[in-house]
Amino acid sequence: MEVLKVASQSNPNSAAGAIAGALEQDGYVEIHAIGAGAVNQTVKAIAIARRLVEKVGEPPIKVVPGFMELSIEGEERTGIRFIVEK
Amino acid sequence: MEVLKVASQSNPNSAAGAIAGALEQDGYVEIHAIGAGAVNQTVKAIAIARRLVEKVGEPPIKVVPGFMELSIEGEERTGIRFIVEK
Repeated sequence: MEVLKVASQSNPNSAAGAIAGALEQDGYVEIHAIGAGAVNQTVKAIAIARRLVEKVGEPPIKVVPGFMELSIEGEERTGIRFIVEK
Repeated sequence: MEVLKVASQSNPNSAAGAIAGALEQDGYVEIHAIGAGAVNQTVKAIAIARRLVEKVGEPPIKVVPGFMELSIEGEERTGIRFIVEK
């Protein structure tokens, strides 16, 4: 199962392309984002990806955001896990 | 139709309560956020609201993010519109 990691410096168009590709291939993709900037880029990327994968008359893609706990360099961080389904 | 406006200074727990209340009442809520901080607070609020409204064995709530164009004090701004459905 592919996991995409989006950072605050990620290009939303590039991330959208990766999301759209994963949705076309698997119908499902998981995205991890840590920090406000990364979460914002992820949401923008998902909004752009909708334009790439949604066909007229089809229902929109579904997004389910949740929290995830991570340990980065020994520090506990809370991130956001987005599950995106076509 | 209720529209919730979330700002970067919004308390995610309070916003989550408002989202959960609207979902319990209408099964649907629209949320507007402008800027990275506001988008991040909205996503956190939705993740918290899931804990308030999702019952065991039920599917998760669905979120559909999209862009919206706004004019604020004569300036064109792009915001994010979240449609949340139970």
